[in-house]
Amino acid sequence: MTDSSTTSKPASPQTPQLISCPDEMRIAVQEHRAQGRTVGVVPTMGALHEGHLSLVDAARRECDVVVTTIFVNPTQFGEGEDLDNYPRTLEADLTALAARGVELVFAPAAGGMYSADHDTTVTVGSLASEFEGRCRPEHFPGVATIVLKLFQIVPADFAFFGQKDYQQSLVVRRMVADLNVPIEIRVCPTIREDDGLAKSSRNVYLSAEERQRATCIWRAFQKAEELLTAGTSTTVDLIQAMRDVIRAAGVTHIDYVAITTCDSLVPVDKIDAPVVVLVAIRIGETRLIDNHLLRPPA
Amino acid sequence: MTDSSTTSKPASPQTPQLISCPDEMRIAVQEHRAQGRTVGVVPTMGALHEGHLSLVDAARRECDVVVTTIFVNPTQFGEGEDLDNYPRTLEADLTALAARGVELVFAPAAGGMYSADHDTTVTVGSLASEFEGRCRPEHFPGVATIVLKLFQIVPADFAFFGQKDYQQSLVVRRMVADLNVPIEIRVCPTIREDDGLAKSSRNVYLSAEERQRATCIWRAFQKAEELLTAGTSTTVDLIQAMRDVIRAAGVTHIDYVAITTCDSLVPVDKIDAPVVVLVAIRIGETRLIDNHLLRPPA
Repeated sequence: MTDSSTTSKPASPQTPQLISCPDEMRIAVQEHRAQGRTVGVVPTMGALHEGHLSLVDAARRECDVVVTTIFVNPTQFGEGEDLDNYPRTLEADLTALAARGVELVFAPAAGGMYSADHDTTVTVGSLASEFEGRCRPEHFPGVATIVLKLFQIVPADFAFFGQKDYQQSLVVRRMVADLNVPIEIRVCPTIREDDGLAKSSRNVYLSAEERQRATCIWRAFQKAEELLTAGTSTTVDLIQAMRDVIRAAGVTHIDYVAITTCDSLVPVDKIDAPVVVLVAIRIGETRLIDNHLLRPPA
Repeated sequence: MTDSSTTSKPASPQTPQLISCPDEMRIAVQEHRAQGRTVGVVPTMGALHEGHLSLVDAARRECDVVVTTIFVNPTQFGEGEDLDNYPRTLEADLTALAARGVELVFAPAAGGMYSADHDTTVTVGSLASEFEGRCRPEHFPGVATIVLKLFQIVPADFAFFGQKDYQQSLVVRRMVADLNVPIEIRVCPTIREDDGLAKSSRNVYLSAEERQRATCIWRAFQKAEELLTAGTSTTVDLIQAMRDVIRAAGVTHIDYVAITTCDSLVPVDKIDAPVVVLVAIRIGETRLIDNHLLRPPA
């Protein structure tokens, strides 16, 4: 960290520098680091909401220079998924990032990240094989590959991810450790609407009625907390109760409701240590994922 | 490049600094680069011969600081291959590197590069799928993964590879381009014995009689040159002639003899542009690979 008098932190909101060329981006980051400034990067697919911006704020608190990347990465979408419809709101994103004091935005062109003969994939094994990995086989190879690329282009000190994508955060941590990538991963709390729905760029897909039903995920988590506090620690019972809450909301498509270890995502039978509840459901055409940490009662 | 008065290039042979810790290695390289020195890295599995040392010399000519890595990477060996028997000659390697003026050697412990829960793999697709990729399915994922790791630990300006492992050099180039790794790959000519056998750490496996037979590869290349000069440009005929030379030496196990494009390793029918001949054979228990560039006669 440098004395504030020497940092480039702006005194008032000003549009971040927008860079689309990988080499230019790398040089900009290297120059900041050569001046002794710490750099934090927040990788996003744009369509920024308060969840993303909380990551920007975390980066702002910890780092001298904040970089946000905006790239709707095609390789992490499967056939028939929402790549084409994924919301793209670059102007609004830049305005929001300016208000949070972001210095640099890396927004490559749609074709700017993969050459025509691109043929390299980064895969993570067991951590990425279940849950989202099983439902979306292309997803984590796509994520691990683009995140590694972004870390080569933005050689930051720290990278900030949301706990909302819990399995993704573990996959990224594993990849970074396994490949000796010199960046520290920070995982920040999920930001929720007042009724508990996790903020997500995909929430805009929900109709008013679907939006209402989507609160079943948070209510399921609350149900599990309640039962756990009352003495139910067998996960088969907790999972059944959560599925009941979700089904009672008229949701018929449940990809998974699971309770696993926090680090390795191995399902557990009984809660006698901190665990994570992982949920993925579909409401109408919209797929929603969420998670919640549970601790055994004191 | 910096003025010679400010570089750390030693005036006379002295033992290189030997580093086994990845973080320590990265910091050492970063400090050199922060001083404006260019850094070249030569990744090896040790058992150094004049082929490796020619890469060191190339790095020495182009860079202020030369790093050699020595690590017998287990993940690029398949079941039943020669991992356990692979020659390990660290003391002699260090002496040879000292004589060539290498400043830094990264030699991690056998278990120092993969944690017990390592689970990330870098794979290259079509370039790695044929030839060595088909004969040794574990090989290129192992190579691409360790090379990426080494490039994160040794963030050099340039990395030097031998043309001897032709397909490997293409796989590494592809990986580096696809993953935006900020390092330039240099591929240097194969170094051969007087009778044409390519220098290889595995040549020590050959008995005197096998060593003699191994010259058939170079003689096959010469045969192809000769026929091409005499007007034979159909690759089926050239390949047949090369196989005949190899079989005449008593070699019964030929993995492949192929003539392909230089960049994408696509087999060609007729030589009307520069091509590469790729050969892999087994002599006794020893597997040998080699390659040779051919140009159409002027």
